[in-house]
Amino acid sequence: MIIDCHGHFTTVPTHFRNWRAKQVEFADDPVNAPKVADAYVSDDEIREGIENGQLKLQQERGSDLTLFSPIAGLMSHHLGNERTSLEWASVSNDLVYRVTQMYPDNFAPVGMLPQSPHAPPKNSIPELRRMVEELGFVGVNVNPDPTGGYWTGKPFTEREWYPLFEAMCELDVPGMVHVAASCNPNFHGTGAHYLNADTSVFMQILQSDLFRDFPTLRLIIPHGGGAVPYHWGRYRGMSLEMMNRPLEGLLDNIFFDTCVYHHPGVELLTNVVPTTNVLFGSEMIGAVRGRDPDTGHYFDDTKRYVDACEALTDEDRFRIYEGNARRVYPRLDARLKAQGL
Amino acid sequence: MIIDCHGHFTTVPTHFRNWRAKQVEFADDPVNAPKVADAYVSDDEIREGIENGQLKLQQERGSDLTLFSPIAGLMSHHLGNERTSLEWASVSNDLVYRVTQMYPDNFAPVGMLPQSPHAPPKNSIPELRRMVEELGFVGVNVNPDPTGGYWTGKPFTEREWYPLFEAMCELDVPGMVHVAASCNPNFHGTGAHYLNADTSVFMQILQSDLFRDFPTLRLIIPHGGGAVPYHWGRYRGMSLEMMNRPLEGLLDNIFFDTCVYHHPGVELLTNVVPTTNVLFGSEMIGAVRGRDPDTGHYFDDTKRYVDACEALTDEDRFRIYEGNARRVYPRLDARLKAQGL
Repeated sequence: MIIDCHGHFTTVPTHFRNWRAKQVEFADDPVNAPKVADAYVSDDEIREGIENGQLKLQQERGSDLTLFSPIAGLMSHHLGNERTSLEWASVSNDLVYRVTQMYPDNFAPVGMLPQSPHAPPKNSIPELRRMVEELGFVGVNVNPDPTGGYWTGKPFTEREWYPLFEAMCELDVPGMVHVAASCNPNFHGTGAHYLNADTSVFMQILQSDLFRDFPTLRLIIPHGGGAVPYHWGRYRGMSLEMMNRPLEGLLDNIFFDTCVYHHPGVELLTNVVPTTNVLFGSEMIGAVRGRDPDTGHYFDDTKRYVDACEALTDEDRFRIYEGNARRVYPRLDARLKAQGL
Repeated sequence: MIIDCHGHFTTVPTHFRNWRAKQVEFADDPVNAPKVADAYVSDDEIREGIENGQLKLQQERGSDLTLFSPIAGLMSHHLGNERTSLEWASVSNDLVYRVTQMYPDNFAPVGMLPQSPHAPPKNSIPELRRMVEELGFVGVNVNPDPTGGYWTGKPFTEREWYPLFEAMCELDVPGMVHVAASCNPNFHGTGAHYLNADTSVFMQILQSDLFRDFPTLRLIIPHGGGAVPYHWGRYRGMSLEMMNRPLEGLLDNIFFDTCVYHHPGVELLTNVVPTTNVLFGSEMIGAVRGRDPDTGHYFDDTKRYVDACEALTDEDRFRIYEGNARRVYPRLDARLKAQGL
């Protein structure tokens, strides 16, 4: 089967986005704030978003299952306050849960956390436990920059993050390191902030002993790892010089998706990074929605690029499309087995 | 001939670095500040740094000429104040000038600007004019984030930058978009901030009409363009969707160097980006100084990677190694012609 490890519910109805805008607007004015009940999205609206969107493209492109999470850009942990983040995470995760209940063969749930610039990461643990233990989520998106592009918080490898990582290890859920919208005009969201975050966190980890402290923590660096595989030689050299250890030691714990929107990029990724560490992902429907005028195909139809990598063996393809996802997300594997898959 | 478009004088004597540290320490205490005369580096010290460093490696690796500029990390425009930046730029540019006077066949001068977070970019124009008109500099490094990794200034495409770009066009010198050290613990300098800046500024330009306003402005995005060529499909798609124009329109004005420290990265770069827009660069001696234990060769010996790109024609190689540099840096071409080259 073909598992897409990276999809967001970007096709929510407009009123749901408007509710969030209003919630943020009235963050400090609870009397006038919108009620949680008003964030309700009907089954019909879910069907409209999914069946005309991600499900349709999934079927057209020939993938089977998407790890599905709330819209990354809309997580916007920098907006509002800790209370609104808690409420928004809960509402968003519940909505994703409903999608995966309605389409259990096509979508498995991945959650967002109620992070906030002024809240320690450990405050996200109750929602993490709820989504995993009560709703059966198989993974979680962790935002390494809740400040929305100003990066005034602490690096991802600092001790304040450790309680969250402990909980992720205990629950055996991997984290996708995924920022939200950028409020810094220097960084376009999907064109810069996303890729910069991938690169920056990888480098933070390279400089740290994070996986000595958490040998079972597993992190997916999305968007093909930002700039990392393209600069694999730079990082190999820096790891040897700065840390006196080979970069490859990180590969027990770090994985990259294939959200790279042209064949040469995916070919480099699968050439440079061992195929044990590459998970198929497309991020559709997301950052780039159009078709390549040269080929007529969607830019984000990343399966085409993987299929065209001639050096890959059948075993490599199995790993990228299915095997690695089952290994990195044990709760996904258990869910699939329970479905007889 | 083989022109390396990207080299910094990283082998300055320790007392020169110490002078800068002291200058910053006493930025607001002019009575106790170190004197400019004390920043003097002797000819012998220059010889020691250059002949055991960049010149030796140049000869070992078979390149002929390096476009040589002050240490990027040490530009640190976020430190001190506008006065110290002015002084440091002048001292640093003068030192680079002396290197190129002592070794005119091996090094051509590229300057740094006296940028400062609280100074408008136009305040850098007098030093730009001095280095180009009086000292014969052929290019300039422009720091898109003088705040040192907090990115609290305005995007590179905002009007406040325009007077500087006007001067660069008038003087016919290209700019390498190159940040300095990072004081943000989230961003390692050479492992994240450099690459992020390359990516971010490219995206700022993609979203802008900068080259409609400055059709003759030429910018080099170093470090192989950050994440850009690896994500070329993403940017092609975004340019079509957001700006309704092909990405390739930027290629009259934007160029990438080959500072990518492994063969697959350089192969992708030269495959994806037209060879009219790729300039040989190594950044030696810089971010990665060690040898690849798998090959025994230096990671930053980027000529090996270019040489190994089998798809390149002789014409492509001429462009990458010489032709593009002469075209992008007309003052370099004039200098070489004056030398009979």
